[in-house]
Amino acid sequence: MQTITTRPFPASRKKHVSGILYPELKVPFRVIEQHATLEVWNGVTRKTPNPDVWVYDTSGPYTDPDQTVDVYTGLSQTRRNWVLGRGDVEELPDFSSEFTRNLLQDSQTFPNIPRPLRARSGHNVTQMHYARRGIITPEMEYVAIREQERLEGMQEYIQQHAGQGFGANIPREITPEFVRSEIAKGRAIIPANINHTELEPMVIGRNFRVKINANIGNSAVSSSIEEEIEKMVWATRWGADTIMDLSTGKNIHQTREWIIRNSPVPVGTVPIYQALEKVGGKAEELTWEIYRDTLIEQAEQGVDYFTIHAGVLLRYIPLTARRRTGIVSRGGSIMAKWCLAHHQESFLYTHFAEICEIMQAYDVSFSLGDGLRPGSLEDANDAAQFAELHTLGELTRIAWKHDVQTMIEGPGHVPMQLIKENMDEQLKHCFEAPFYTLGPLTTDIAPGYDHITSAIGAAQIGWYGTAMLCYVTPKEHLGLPDKNDVREGVITYKIAAHAADLAKGFPGAQIRDNALSKARFEFRWEDQFNLSLDPERARSFHDATLPAEAAKTAHFCSMCGPHFCSMKLTEDIRRGMQEKSEEFQEKGLNIYLEAAGVEQPT
Amino acid sequence: MQTITTRPFPASRKKHVSGILYPELKVPFRVIEQHATLEVWNGVTRKTPNPDVWVYDTSGPYTDPDQTVDVYTGLSQTRRNWVLGRGDVEELPDFSSEFTRNLLQDSQTFPNIPRPLRARSGHNVTQMHYARRGIITPEMEYVAIREQERLEGMQEYIQQHAGQGFGANIPREITPEFVRSEIAKGRAIIPANINHTELEPMVIGRNFRVKINANIGNSAVSSSIEEEIEKMVWATRWGADTIMDLSTGKNIHQTREWIIRNSPVPVGTVPIYQALEKVGGKAEELTWEIYRDTLIEQAEQGVDYFTIHAGVLLRYIPLTARRRTGIVSRGGSIMAKWCLAHHQESFLYTHFAEICEIMQAYDVSFSLGDGLRPGSLEDANDAAQFAELHTLGELTRIAWKHDVQTMIEGPGHVPMQLIKENMDEQLKHCFEAPFYTLGPLTTDIAPGYDHITSAIGAAQIGWYGTAMLCYVTPKEHLGLPDKNDVREGVITYKIAAHAADLAKGFPGAQIRDNALSKARFEFRWEDQFNLSLDPERARSFHDATLPAEAAKTAHFCSMCGPHFCSMKLTEDIRRGMQEKSEEFQEKGLNIYLEAAGVEQPT
Repeated sequence: MQTITTRPFPASRKKHVSGILYPELKVPFRVIEQHATLEVWNGVTRKTPNPDVWVYDTSGPYTDPDQTVDVYTGLSQTRRNWVLGRGDVEELPDFSSEFTRNLLQDSQTFPNIPRPLRARSGHNVTQMHYARRGIITPEMEYVAIREQERLEGMQEYIQQHAGQGFGANIPREITPEFVRSEIAKGRAIIPANINHTELEPMVIGRNFRVKINANIGNSAVSSSIEEEIEKMVWATRWGADTIMDLSTGKNIHQTREWIIRNSPVPVGTVPIYQALEKVGGKAEELTWEIYRDTLIEQAEQGVDYFTIHAGVLLRYIPLTARRRTGIVSRGGSIMAKWCLAHHQESFLYTHFAEICEIMQAYDVSFSLGDGLRPGSLEDANDAAQFAELHTLGELTRIAWKHDVQTMIEGPGHVPMQLIKENMDEQLKHCFEAPFYTLGPLTTDIAPGYDHITSAIGAAQIGWYGTAMLCYVTPKEHLGLPDKNDVREGVITYKIAAHAADLAKGFPGAQIRDNALSKARFEFRWEDQFNLSLDPERARSFHDATLPAEAAKTAHFCSMCGPHFCSMKLTEDIRRGMQEKSEEFQEKGLNIYLEAAGVEQPT
Repeated sequence: MQTITTRPFPASRKKHVSGILYPELKVPFRVIEQHATLEVWNGVTRKTPNPDVWVYDTSGPYTDPDQTVDVYTGLSQTRRNWVLGRGDVEELPDFSSEFTRNLLQDSQTFPNIPRPLRARSGHNVTQMHYARRGIITPEMEYVAIREQERLEGMQEYIQQHAGQGFGANIPREITPEFVRSEIAKGRAIIPANINHTELEPMVIGRNFRVKINANIGNSAVSSSIEEEIEKMVWATRWGADTIMDLSTGKNIHQTREWIIRNSPVPVGTVPIYQALEKVGGKAEELTWEIYRDTLIEQAEQGVDYFTIHAGVLLRYIPLTARRRTGIVSRGGSIMAKWCLAHHQESFLYTHFAEICEIMQAYDVSFSLGDGLRPGSLEDANDAAQFAELHTLGELTRIAWKHDVQTMIEGPGHVPMQLIKENMDEQLKHCFEAPFYTLGPLTTDIAPGYDHITSAIGAAQIGWYGTAMLCYVTPKEHLGLPDKNDVREGVITYKIAAHAADLAKGFPGAQIRDNALSKARFEFRWEDQFNLSLDPERARSFHDATLPAEAAKTAHFCSMCGPHFCSMKLTEDIRRGMQEKSEEFQEKGLNIYLEAAGVEQPT
C-alpha cells in the first residue's frame, strides 16, 4: 500500500466543537496558532499576542496526530448510532445486489465491510424528509456549527466589506434551524448516505459557504486502488469538500469501497459508468434492470450522491447536431447513444420515480447531470443546454415530492458575459435547488492551464449563487490528473470558492484574509505561510531565494530587497506621522490628521 | 552570456503584413498551420484541409528562424527612419545626462548604443500630438493592422457570441483612422519613445485588445543582466505586450540599456527607483534635480513609459494611517516618506508641467502610478485610494494639455464585488484614459498562487474596460520570480486578457477558440497543442500518460480512456442521427430534425 499523507499542517492543531442539541457532536476545525506582534517603540519592545485563527477543515482525521488511521479498517463509523437512533432503518442480512455478493470474496475487496442499512418499509430516511417534518438532525446541527467562523477574540479581524449576493439570503448566524429550513425548501442538501457513516457532514447550498468537489478515479489506461485512496486523502487535505469517484477502469466496485470506508467527505459517483462496464462498454445494451441493480449496489456501499443524466431527452439530441463539440458529458453521450439506438426516452427518465424510491431508502442525493452542457465556447447557452435544464427542473419537482435531496449540475465552457444567464436560468427553472457547476471555462485556448481558465468562471458563478464548484485540473482535456494536478486543482478552486464567499459577504469570510494581511504587514513570515491555503508552497517559494532562518523575521523579501520594501517604508511613515503628530500637538496643532478627518493612531 | 531562447513555436511561422498608407511596414503575425480533417464515411476517407490560424505575436524576431539575433548588436532600429522622417527631431551630439556620460566607459555598458534623439526646440513628438493634428503615423497604421484578426478563409471559425462591453465602443474593423481618433481623445496610447526604435508598436486602450505587462528586473539580493535579458525574451515569447524593468539592484542603467536595445515591446520603468539609488536609498534626500536628470537619462535610453506617483499628496497620507497594510506601492511609500520629511507636496506634483515637457520631447508616455493602492482586501476602495485617483484625473488633464500620452495605474487587492467600482470611478474621473491594473487580487489567503487570485480579478476588470493588465506571478509577496514564474504569470494573464476580449465581443476574438475546439473534437491532438497558448506544456501533459506517437491521432486520452470518451461517442451519435435521418427520409419522415427545428447535417 502506498503511503497515505497524514502530516498535520504547520502550527495547526485539530479542535472539536460539541453541539447544544446534540452534545456528543465533535465538529472539526483546524486552529492556526500565530506569533505575537513585536513593536519597537522608543527603544522598548512591546509584544502583543495574536489570536488563533479557526478555519473550516475538510481533511478528517488524517491531519490529526492524535488519531491513528488504518486504511484497512476504515474510519470510525460515528454516524451509525445517529442513523440507528432514528429507528427507521434496518440492518440487512446481506447485500441486495447480486453483483456485490459475488465480489465479497474477491482478493481486492476491502476487509472490513459494514452490514448494509436500508429504510424500513414505508419509511423515508432523507434529511429533506426530516427537515420537512420539523426535525433537526445531528447532521443539521453539525453543519450549522461547521459553517460558522470562530468570532471570539477576533475583533481586530472581523471587519469585512458589504457583500453583493444577487438575491442570496445569508443570515448573520447559521443556526441549526436555518439549516433545517433551507433543506426543507430544497435550497440546500446534506449529502449523507445512511451507509456512509464515516463522513463528517457538510452542507451544499447558496446560503452557505461555497463548496468544491474534486474528481478522482482511475480510467482504463491508468491508476490503481492505492493511488486513488491517496488521491482522496490528498484532495481533502487541500480542501475538497466532496469527492467524486469517476473510475471507469478495472475494479470499480472495490476501489469505491476502499474510498468510501476511508473518506471523511461525501462521495459522489456516476452510476452509469459502472453499468456500462457491466455490458462490455456497449451503450445500447444498457437496461433499466442492470442500472437499477447498480444504483442499489452503490447505495448500499454508501455513495452519497449520484449524478444521473435523466434530462437527456430524445428530442434534445438533434439540437446538438450543429454544435462545435457535440455532447461532451460522458454520461450524456452514453444516454444519447442509448436513446437513439432504441428510439425511446431513456430509462433514467421513464423510471425516475422508481429511482427516487431507491434514493429515499438510503438518503442518496441527486446530482441531476447536465448531459448536454457545452464543451466549447461556441456551444455555450444554446438550445440543447437550456432545454435540458428545464427538464432538470421538472425532475427536481418529482424528486422533491419524494423528499429526495437534489442538486443540479451546470456547465462547462462559457464566456464571461454569458455566465450569469446560466445562474439566472437555473435559479428560475430549478426553483433554487443548489447549482453545482464544472468551472465554467472562460476560453478554450489554454489546455494545460484549464484550472485557471475555469477558476475565472467558477469564482464568478459562485458569486452569482452556485453552491458547489467542481474543480478542473491542469490536465483537463489532456490526461488523467496525478497528485500534483489534484493539489493544484483543489487549491485553485478553494481560491475561487473563497473569493465568491467574500463577494457574497458571507459573515466572517474575511477574517483569514485580514489575519494574513496583518501578518504580512508585520513581517511575521511564519504566520503568513501558516495562514495561507498552501503553507508548504508559500514557504518553499520564499525560501527559494532567502532560505536562512533569519529571513523569516526580516523586514523585506527578495522581491524588492531591503531598500525598496514598501511595508518597511510604511513603518517609517507611520512613525513619522506619529512623531509629527506629537510635535504638532505640543504646538496645539494637529494638522495632518484633522485635515484628513482621521483619528490619530494610538 | 546565458542562452537566449529563440526556438520557434511548433507548426508556426512568422508572416509580415505591409501597410496601405505605409507600404514599408512589416507587421508581424504568427501563423499556425493545421492538419486536415479526416472523415471516414461509408468506408471512404474524406480529407478536408483546415486553414492557417493567424495570431497576434509579441515575440519579435526571437521566434523567427529567418532572422539572426545578436544581443550585443541589438535589434534592428526599424523605426529610426520613421522618426527622422517626421523632420521634428534632432540627433544629440552626446547624452544630456551627466550620469549617463559617466557610465559610457563602464565594462557592463552595452557596446552599440545609438545616438540619442530629441524633439527639436518648439516641437512636440508625441503620437497624441500628431493624432490631434490629424496625422496618421506609421505607428498608428501598424497597430491597426496588428489588432485585426485574419478573416479570409475563416468562415467556419468566425462565429462568436455577442459581447457585453459596458460602454466600450469597439468597431467591427480597426482602421488607422480609428486608432488616430482614439489617441487624439486620450482613450488609447502607443508607448513608443523616439529612442526605442527597435520596438514593434502596440496600442493600449479600452477599444483594442486587452494587453498584459510583465515585470522583470533585478533586486539587491538577486539576478544578473544576462538573466534579465532572457526574462524579457522569455516574457515576450509567451505573450507579454510590454515589460517593465523594475530593477532596484546593481547596474540599473546598464541592465536597462541591454534590455531596451533588445526589446521588441515597449519598456516601462519607475524612475524614482533609480533616483533613490542615486541618493543611497534615503528617500528624504531625493531632489527634483536628481529626479529630472534621471528622467532625461532614461528618456534618452528609450524607455517608453514612466510610472510616476505624482498623485501621492501630503493630505492623503494620513488617510492610510488606519489601513491594514499601509502603503504597498514602492514608489508611493518613497514619495510619502519624502512628503512627510519635507512637509510639502512632492516634486512630482509641483514640477508636473516640467515633467510633461520632458515627456513630449521624447514621446515617453505617462503611467500615473497608484501609490496609494490597497495592499489587502480590507484596504480596498478606501478614501486614500480614491482621493489619489481623483488627483490622477487632474494630472491627466495637464498631461493632455501637453499632448502627452497617459494611462492610469490601478489596484491591487480588491474583492470581486468592489472591482467594478474601480473601473467606473477611473472612467469617470480620468476621462477614459486607459486603465492599467495590477490584478486585482480577489483574496489575500493564497500566497504561492497569487497569479490565480489575481487572474480572477484581472479577467473581470479587463471585461469592464481595463486596457492593460499587469501580471502577477506565483512568487508575488514571497520572492523574485524566476523564469518558470514569468512563464506561469504571462500565460495566466494572457488567459485573463483573452477571456476579457471574448466577453467584450472583440471582433474575431473567438476564432482561435473555435479552431482549437474543432481540433479537439476531431482528435487532431497536434493541432490542439499547436493552437494553445502554451503548446509545449499541452503536449507534455498529454504525453505524460500517453507518450506514443499513435496516441496523437487516437480517439481518446488517458482522462477517460477509449470507452468513455464523450467526443468519440458523439461521433457515433451523429452517425446514428444521419442514418436515422436517411431512414426516415426514405419513409417520408424527418422526425428528429424537424421536431427540433434544426437543419439536417450535410
